[in-house]
Amino acid sequence: MHILITGAAGMIGRKLIEQLIVDRALNRQPIEKLTLMDIVAPTRPAGFSDRVKVRTGDLADPAIAMKAVSERPDVIFHLAGVVSGEAELNLEKGYHVNLDGTRSLLEAIRKTGDGYKPRAIFTSSIAVFGAPFPHTIPDEFHLTPLTSYGAQKVMCEQMLADYTRKGILEGVGIRLPSIVVRPGKPNKAASGFFSGIIREPLNGEEAQLPVADTVMHTHASPRSAVGFLIHAAGLAREKVEPRINLTMPGVCCTVAEQIEALRRVAGDKVAARVRRDPDELIVRIVAGWPHRFEAKRSTALGFVAESTFDEIIRVHIEEDRGGSFVK
Amino acid sequence: MHILITGAAGMIGRKLIEQLIVDRALNRQPIEKLTLMDIVAPTRPAGFSDRVKVRTGDLADPAIAMKAVSERPDVIFHLAGVVSGEAELNLEKGYHVNLDGTRSLLEAIRKTGDGYKPRAIFTSSIAVFGAPFPHTIPDEFHLTPLTSYGAQKVMCEQMLADYTRKGILEGVGIRLPSIVVRPGKPNKAASGFFSGIIREPLNGEEAQLPVADTVMHTHASPRSAVGFLIHAAGLAREKVEPRINLTMPGVCCTVAEQIEALRRVAGDKVAARVRRDPDELIVRIVAGWPHRFEAKRSTALGFVAESTFDEIIRVHIEEDRGGSFVK
Repeated sequence: MHILITGAAGMIGRKLIEQLIVDRALNRQPIEKLTLMDIVAPTRPAGFSDRVKVRTGDLADPAIAMKAVSERPDVIFHLAGVVSGEAELNLEKGYHVNLDGTRSLLEAIRKTGDGYKPRAIFTSSIAVFGAPFPHTIPDEFHLTPLTSYGAQKVMCEQMLADYTRKGILEGVGIRLPSIVVRPGKPNKAASGFFSGIIREPLNGEEAQLPVADTVMHTHASPRSAVGFLIHAAGLAREKVEPRINLTMPGVCCTVAEQIEALRRVAGDKVAARVRRDPDELIVRIVAGWPHRFEAKRSTALGFVAESTFDEIIRVHIEEDRGGSFVK
Repeated sequence: MHILITGAAGMIGRKLIEQLIVDRALNRQPIEKLTLMDIVAPTRPAGFSDRVKVRTGDLADPAIAMKAVSERPDVIFHLAGVVSGEAELNLEKGYHVNLDGTRSLLEAIRKTGDGYKPRAIFTSSIAVFGAPFPHTIPDEFHLTPLTSYGAQKVMCEQMLADYTRKGILEGVGIRLPSIVVRPGKPNKAASGFFSGIIREPLNGEEAQLPVADTVMHTHASPRSAVGFLIHAAGLAREKVEPRINLTMPGVCCTVAEQIEALRRVAGDKVAARVRRDPDELIVRIVAGWPHRFEAKRSTALGFVAESTFDEIIRVHIEEDRGGSFVK
């Protein structure tokens, strides 16, 4: 089993690699080789390095993409992309990385030909949906994104589904909810505060809450995101095709409920470190985001997320903070 | 008022040009200039030729697209594209013409900048939908096309909506039902027989019906398609944005009902010229097509199609056959 991961230097990429190295297998087949690709050099994981190849480059370049699939990886986790805030600020970069990068990868697979037909798991996003919404968004809801990032994700989903239908690859698109708690520094995603209001207080720091605490959204942990990816890689084709793009399950709650969960898990003093400080731009962006999903199909297909936000906080403390926090 | 029409040599392009020349105005403003563009040279219309510029070239070429918008047309009717059958047979050509052509046009508009912000009407298709369907497809139904053509149309719709949201242009995407009766020779569209079973019998020829007569679909005449385009050009932005892609109204009927309408309009002898001759490929493609639409939004916005299939046949006899047919 040879696995290619694009966007391998990103947060989900790193956590996926860690899990694969623990498992030493995917779809019950031993992992013989990992190809890690990103625009910046991904870290070579410890204890597996004889079977790891690291590639650096812009996937949108057809020659780079051809090279990335030249050793015919059996499974491709295509995570590479720029986040919502960056795609919104830089239109050209967003289309280049998110759309052209994906297209270039799919084209490289097609041009390899000669019976090559990998499983390709693509991380899409609930940003494919745009307001106004019904109370709960059904799996059959239309795609009217209100960000360039969301538009690019829809475009990639469509191409992945079309190339799957044409027998070029076996694609599955997984629409991730907001993944929290992101460890480390904030990134340029407008959703960054959802992690910040948990991560910073647990680290003894103040966190800015730029929206009202009545804002409702759906979340899953990075551990769940990795679980979604691995589960998607093992799905039977006939269960998922031709509607290969799936909305993942998650925990739906308000910001107030997130802060209450933080209080339950870490105490009053930690929860008090969240400071209300509205930001007009973030308020406006978040107002267009979806709240709550049915996710019937993905649940029936066996995808599992946390069931409470408390669990999501505990995953962060365990995975990223070695089990402790600043009281 | 300067109008650019891409795909001007196609059937709808030609009929749109005829109508604009009769009207001599669009959105109550006199037409001063028409730029007609296509991959093959569009016919120069009679009686307006001092104000017509003809351009030939591949819109996917950025230099050609820049030139096409260099004189800053106020309204762009973007009709250029390859049809479903051809996009399915030739994947590269489909993506090149349908996706890259549209992207190149939108990019040319963006790069022109300097306050340039045209109204851009894009002909999408009900092929953005794919089976299985509910009894009637609501405006909020998800986009799961089962053809490359449909996937490309979704991708273009997304980009048009995104560029509209970013203030680069004022886009409206109109999802056309099957346009019948197409005059002239059959094209490569898998839906061609819907026109053929009316057009050929009226011309004294036998027509092949490749599917069961229980097949249900939604239709509008070329005259209605032209009406949709002109109506879309005059829509108030605030009524349509940000969900700029609209499913058009049409006449929903079975093939049997089409043939009955032909009998009512043209008599038994004409209707008897339809010959049952199933074609596996067409049967399979058509099985994935949508049947019936609510089209609530477009109807509320004032888009109007025929109300019976009889009317659709009469439009063809009047517009394309000079009022007569072979009894």
